[in-house]
Amino acid sequence: MSTVVGIIMGSQSDWPTMREAAEILDALGISYEARIVSAHRTPDRLWSYGREAAGRGLKVIVAGAGGAAHLPGMMASKTRLPVIGVPVQTRALSGVDSLYSIVQMPRGFPVATMAIGAAGAANGGLMAASILALGDAALAERLEAWRADLSNSIPEVPEDV
Amino acid sequence: MSTVVGIIMGSQSDWPTMREAAEILDALGISYEARIVSAHRTPDRLWSYGREAAGRGLKVIVAGAGGAAHLPGMMASKTRLPVIGVPVQTRALSGVDSLYSIVQMPRGFPVATMAIGAAGAANGGLMAASILALGDAALAERLEAWRADLSNSIPEVPEDV
Amino acid sequence: MSTVVGIIMGSQSDWPTMREAAEILDALGISYEARIVSAHRTPDRLWSYGREAAGRGLKVIVAGAGGAAHLPGMMASKTRLPVIGVPVQTRALSGVDSLYSIVQMPRGFPVATMAIGAAGAANGGLMAASILALGDAALAERLEAWRADLSNSIPEVPEDV
Amino acid sequence: MSTVVGIIMGSQSDWPTMREAAEILDALGISYEARIVSAHRTPDRLWSYGREAAGRGLKVIVAGAGGAAHLPGMMASKTRLPVIGVPVQTRALSGVDSLYSIVQMPRGFPVATMAIGAAGAANGGLMAASILALGDAALAERLEAWRADLSNSIPEVPEDV
Amino acid sequence: MSTVVGIIMGSQSDWPTMREAAEILDALGISYEARIVSAHRTPDRLWSYGREAAGRGLKVIVAGAGGAAHLPGMMASKTRLPVIGVPVQTRALSGVDSLYSIVQMPRGFPVATMAIGAAGAANGGLMAASILALGDAALAERLEAWRADLSNSIPEVPEDV
Amino acid sequence: MSTVVGIIMGSQSDWPTMREAAEILDALGISYEARIVSAHRTPDRLWSYGREAAGRGLKVIVAGAGGAAHLPGMMASKTRLPVIGVPVQTRALSGVDSLYSIVQMPRGFPVATMAIGAAGAANGGLMAASILALGDAALAERLEAWRADLSNSIPEVPEDV
Amino acid sequence: MSTVVGIIMGSQSDWPTMREAAEILDALGISYEARIVSAHRTPDRLWSYGREAAGRGLKVIVAGAGGAAHLPGMMASKTRLPVIGVPVQTRALSGVDSLYSIVQMPRGFPVATMAIGAAGAANGGLMAASILALGDAALAERLEAWRADLSNSIPEVPEDV
Amino acid sequence: MSTVVGIIMGSQSDWPTMREAAEILDALGISYEARIVSAHRTPDRLWSYGREAAGRGLKVIVAGAGGAAHLPGMMASKTRLPVIGVPVQTRALSGVDSLYSIVQMPRGFPVATMAIGAAGAANGGLMAASILALGDAALAERLEAWRADLSNSIPEVPEDV
Repeated sequence: MSTVVGIIMGSQSDWPTMREAAEILDALGISYEARIVSAHRTPDRLWSYGREAAGRGLKVIVAGAGGAAHLPGMMASKTRLPVIGVPVQTRALSGVDSLYSIVQMPRGFPVATMAIGAAGAANGGLMAASILALGDAALAERLEAWRADLSNSIPEVPEDV
Repeated sequence: MSTVVGIIMGSQSDWPTMREAAEILDALGISYEARIVSAHRTPDRLWSYGREAAGRGLKVIVAGAGGAAHLPGMMASKTRLPVIGVPVQTRALSGVDSLYSIVQMPRGFPVATMAIGAAGAANGGLMAASILALGDAALAERLEAWRADLSNSIPEVPEDV
Repeated sequence: MSTVVGIIMGSQSDWPTMREAAEILDALGISYEARIVSAHRTPDRLWSYGREAAGRGLKVIVAGAGGAAHLPGMMASKTRLPVIGVPVQTRALSGVDSLYSIVQMPRGFPVATMAIGAAGAANGGLMAASILALGDAALAERLEAWRADLSNSIPEVPEDV
Repeated sequence: MSTVVGIIMGSQSDWPTMREAAEILDALGISYEARIVSAHRTPDRLWSYGREAAGRGLKVIVAGAGGAAHLPGMMASKTRLPVIGVPVQTRALSGVDSLYSIVQMPRGFPVATMAIGAAGAANGGLMAASILALGDAALAERLEAWRADLSNSIPEVPEDV
Repeated sequence: MSTVVGIIMGSQSDWPTMREAAEILDALGISYEARIVSAHRTPDRLWSYGREAAGRGLKVIVAGAGGAAHLPGMMASKTRLPVIGVPVQTRALSGVDSLYSIVQMPRGFPVATMAIGAAGAANGGLMAASILALGDAALAERLEAWRADLSNSIPEVPEDV
Repeated sequence: MSTVVGIIMGSQSDWPTMREAAEILDALGISYEARIVSAHRTPDRLWSYGREAAGRGLKVIVAGAGGAAHLPGMMASKTRLPVIGVPVQTRALSGVDSLYSIVQMPRGFPVATMAIGAAGAANGGLMAASILALGDAALAERLEAWRADLSNSIPEVPEDV
Repeated sequence: MSTVVGIIMGSQSDWPTMREAAEILDALGISYEARIVSAHRTPDRLWSYGREAAGRGLKVIVAGAGGAAHLPGMMASKTRLPVIGVPVQTRALSGVDSLYSIVQMPRGFPVATMAIGAAGAANGGLMAASILALGDAALAERLEAWRADLSNSIPEVPEDV
Repeated sequence: MSTVVGIIMGSQSDWPTMREAAEILDALGISYEARIVSAHRTPDRLWSYGREAAGRGLKVIVAGAGGAAHLPGMMASKTRLPVIGVPVQTRALSGVDSLYSIVQMPRGFPVATMAIGAAGAANGGLMAASILALGDAALAERLEAWRADLSNSIPEVPEDV
C-alpha cells in the first residue's frame, strides 16, 4: 500500500510534538512518512512536496509549525488535499502566534487547525484517520474501537496520587 | 444521491455566517443539509444528530458556534465523522472565545478549526470539499477548477477605487 | 444525609486542582462525591449524571475542566441545579482557554465561573456552601465562622521570611 | 413575600445591561430590588448593603460592574450570601478588564461570574433562580418550564432573513 | 518625624514584591510602615486604614495586590491621599489580571499604577519619593542624586558574562 | 501664582482625550498649561520641557500618548517631578499598546499610569490634584468636596431611560 | 532610473492601506511599482516575483497582508532584498493575527515589521527611503527635509476643534 | 573600514539576547560596535548617539530593549538611519509589552521590528546585512551563501533524539 499521510514540520525541533501524530497513525495502522519541509528555509521543497502530493498517492497532510507558521497555509495553497495544521508551542507567545498564523487563513485555502502542542498533534493523526475512514471501512472500525477504548479507560472516581 | 454534508449551527443568528459554507457547497455541487443544533438548548438533538450522522450517509459535518462554543467539540465526541468547526465572531471578545472553545480540544477528539467568521465558514465548505474529493474524482476536478478560477481572478495591479 | 454536592472533572489530571473544593467541603461538613465525567470521552456519563442529579438529591455541582472545557456548560444544559465552573490551568494558554469556554455561556444556561486554578476550585467549594447555607442555618453559621477565621488569621504586619 | 434578590450595579450606565437580569426574574416570578451601589463612589452604601443583606431577607445578590469592577468582589467580602457577578462590556477593553476584576477572586471569596454583557446579565437572573429553586419547588417547576420553552423555541432549520 | 508612606499589601505573599518599595524608601530616608490590609479578608481594616490615613499624617499610600486586585482602588475610594498601585505577578495570568483590576479605575478615583511585579514595587517607592520631594527640598536632592547614581552606573559597553 | 501642572500630549489628536484632565483642573482651581510635546516628532522640545519643568515651577506633569507611547516615560527620565501617564485609546489595539508602553517602565523611572482613554485623562487631573493637595490645605478641601459631590450625585435606584 | 521599490499586497482590499506607502514614496521621489501578489491564491507569482526581484533592480520590498499573513515572510524566503512587512488591520482580531504572522519569523528570514494599519504602511515607505538613502545622498537630504517638515508642523499648543 | 552597524541595548541584561545579532555580523564579516544606551537611565547618551550616528559612518542601528521599550523608537526619532528593533522577552508579559512598545510607532518614525527574543536579535543582524548588501556586492554574495548554507543544512527526515 502506498503512503497516504504526509507528516511535515518546519524543523527538527517540531518532531517531539509531531511524533504524537505518528504514534496515532501507527496505532491505527495508517501508512505515513515524516518529513522536514521548512516554508522559509526550504521553500522549493515545500513547492515540490505540494505539487506532487496528490500524484504520489498522499491523501492527507498533517503540517506542524511554530511562530510565524507559514507551512500549513502555504501547503494548502499548493495542493487540494486536506491539510491539517498543528500549532507548535513557542517560547515567548506560547503558540498563540503559531495558532493565529495557521487558523486565520483567507477564503479559499482552509487549514484544519488543531489545538496548540502535543494534544493537537495527536489529534492531527486522529483527524487524518477520520478522513481516511470515510473510504476505508476497516479503518473506520479501528477508529471506532480506538475511541471506545479511550472512553472505557476513564475511571469513575479520581484517585489520590 | 444522499446528503453528504451536515451544516449545523448553534442558533439562527449564526446562519448569516454559516451560509457562506452552504454557498461554497452549492458552487461545487455537493449535497448538504442546514440544521440548527444547539449544544445547550437542544442537547438531545445534538446527541441524536451525532449518533445517526454516519448511518444516515453523512460524511462531513461543518459546525459553527459562538462564545462558549461547545457544539463542534461535542459533535466530535458523538461521531467518528470529521467535524469542521467555525468560530462565529462575537460581540465582546470578537470570536476569540469561540476560537479557543473550538480549537483547544483534548487528545482524542479533534475539531478541524477554521478562521473566525465568514471566511472561516466558506473555508469550512472548501475543507469538506477537499475531504470528499478524496473519494470523488469529478469533485476533485471541480475543486481544482474552483481554485484555479480564484487564482486567475487576481489582477496584477491594484486599482484605485 | 444524602450527598448534596457533586464534584465532577474532565480527567484524573484535574483532581489535584479540584481536591481543593473537596477540602473546603470537608472543612464545612458538607457531603459530596467526586467523579470523573469527561464531556468528550464519556458523553453518555455526562448525560445520565445531569439527568439524574436533581432526583438523586444533589443540590449543587462543581465542575472543573481545562482547554476546550465543555463539561460545566454541558452539565448546565442537562440539569436545572446550579453548576459552578472551575477553569483548570492549561499549559499553552494558562487557562484562558478554559475560562472562556466556561464563562461565555449563552443566554439560558449560566455557569457560575470561578478563578482559574486551585483558588478557583476552593472557591467552588465555598460558593456551594454559600448556596446550601441558604437552606441550612447551621451551615450558615459554620460558613460565617470559617470566614471569620480566615479574616482573623491575617497578621497586621508582613514578616520577612 | 420579602424581596429575595438584590440586583446591584456600579452606575446608571450599567442598567441597560442589568435590566436583562430583572426581566428574567420578572418572568420567573421572583421578587427583587434594583439598586446603584458604586464600590468607589458610594463605598459606605456598599458596606451597609452587604452587612444588612442577609438580615433583610435577601438570598442572592446579582452585581454588575465594568472596568476595574470591584463591586461584586467587595460585596462577596461583606456577606456570606451567594454573589453573582456580571462583567459589563467596556469601551477600550471590551469587558476583559471587567471579567478579570470579577472572576479572579482569591481563595475565600467566590464570585459566581457570568458572561460579559447582556447575556451574562440574563444568566445572572437564571443562576439566581436555580439557587432559589433549591428551596422552592414551585419555582423549580417554573424554571424547568422556562428552560423547556427555550429549547422548544429552536427551529430545526435556519431561515433566510 | 511621623510616618509618611504606608506600604500596604493584600497578603503576606505580596511582601517579597513590595519589599522593593520599602528598600527604595530606606535608601532615600523616607519613613514608612508596612501593613497587610486585605480588601476581601479584612475589609474593615481597609476601611479604617483609609479613613484614618490622612489624619495620622500619612502622605502617600503604596498598595500592592494580585489577581482581582481591589485593594488599591478601594483605598483610593476611602482617602484623598495619592494611592500608588503595584500589580503583583500572578500564576495563571502573569499579572494582567492584577494590572487591569488596578489601572482601569472609573472617573473619580485614580490609582497611580506601576509596572507588574518587583520593578513596579521599586518604582512605587520612587513615585512616592517624587511626590514627597515636592514639599521637601532635601529629599528632592537625595532623589536627584539617586537618579544620577543610577545613570552613572551604566557602562558604555556590554560585558560577556 | 505660577502654573503648577503641565498637561502634555503627543499630538493634536490626543486633545479630545486630554481635555478631560484640563476640565478637572479647571473645576478644582489648579493652574495648568496644555502643550503638544511629541516624543518622536519634537524630541528636543521634550528634552527642554523636561529639563526646565521643575525650575519653571511645575509640580506635576500629566502626559497622554497613544500607540508606542514614549512621551510619559521619556519625560519621567528627564525630570524628577511626578509624571502621570494617560494611555490614549488606539484604533487597532484599543490602547493596550499605549498602556503597555506607558506602564511597564523599568526600575528607576515610574510613570503613574491611569486608565485607557477619557476616564484616565480625568483621573490624571484628579491624581495631580491629590498630589498638590498634600501641600495646599485649601485644595485638599476642594478635592474632598469634589469627591463628596460625586458620591452624593449617585441615585439609589437606576432609572429607565 | 529603474524601479527600486516593490509595494506588494495580498489582495485588492489591502490597497487603501498600502497606498499610504506609495504616497510617501511619491513625496520623496522614489520610483516604485504596486502589485497584487497573493501568497495563497497566486503562489507562483510570489515565487517568480521573489526570484526576479534583485535581478530586476528592485532594492526594497514593502509587503502588506492581513490575517494569516504569509506574504512578507515567504517573500523574505525567496529574496535577499530587505522585506518590510505591513500588518493590515483585520475584522475579528484587529490585525494582531497579521502582526504575529509577520513579525514572529524564525532565525534566518527577517521581516522588518511596521505598525498595524495605515500608519504602518506610511512607515513602510519611510523605512524604504531610509534604506535607499544610505546609497543616495540626495534622497538622504530629501528624507531629512521631510522629517524636519514633520517636526516643524507640530504646534506648541493644542487647539479646540 | 569604519564601523557600520551599531548594536545598542537598554541594559547589560539584554546582551545575552543581542549577542545573537553580533554573532551574525561576525559570521558575515560586518564591522559593528556594541553599546549600552538606556533610553531612561542615559537619555543624553541616546541623544548624542543618535545625533552623531550618521556622521560617524554608521549605516544601520540594531536596538534591543524590553518592557516599556523606548530605545528603538527614540533612536528612530534622532537619526534618519534605518533602526531595527528587537523586543527582548520579559518576565510578566513575555515580551508582548516590548513588541507593542517597539512596533506601534506613529507615522513618520518607523522601526523595523523583529521577532521577540533571540531569533529576533539574530534576524536583526541579518536585516542589517541585507540592507548593507544593497551597496556591497561582496557582502550580498556572502549573505546569499549564508542563506544557502542554512537551507542546505535542513535534513529531509526528522531524527529521533
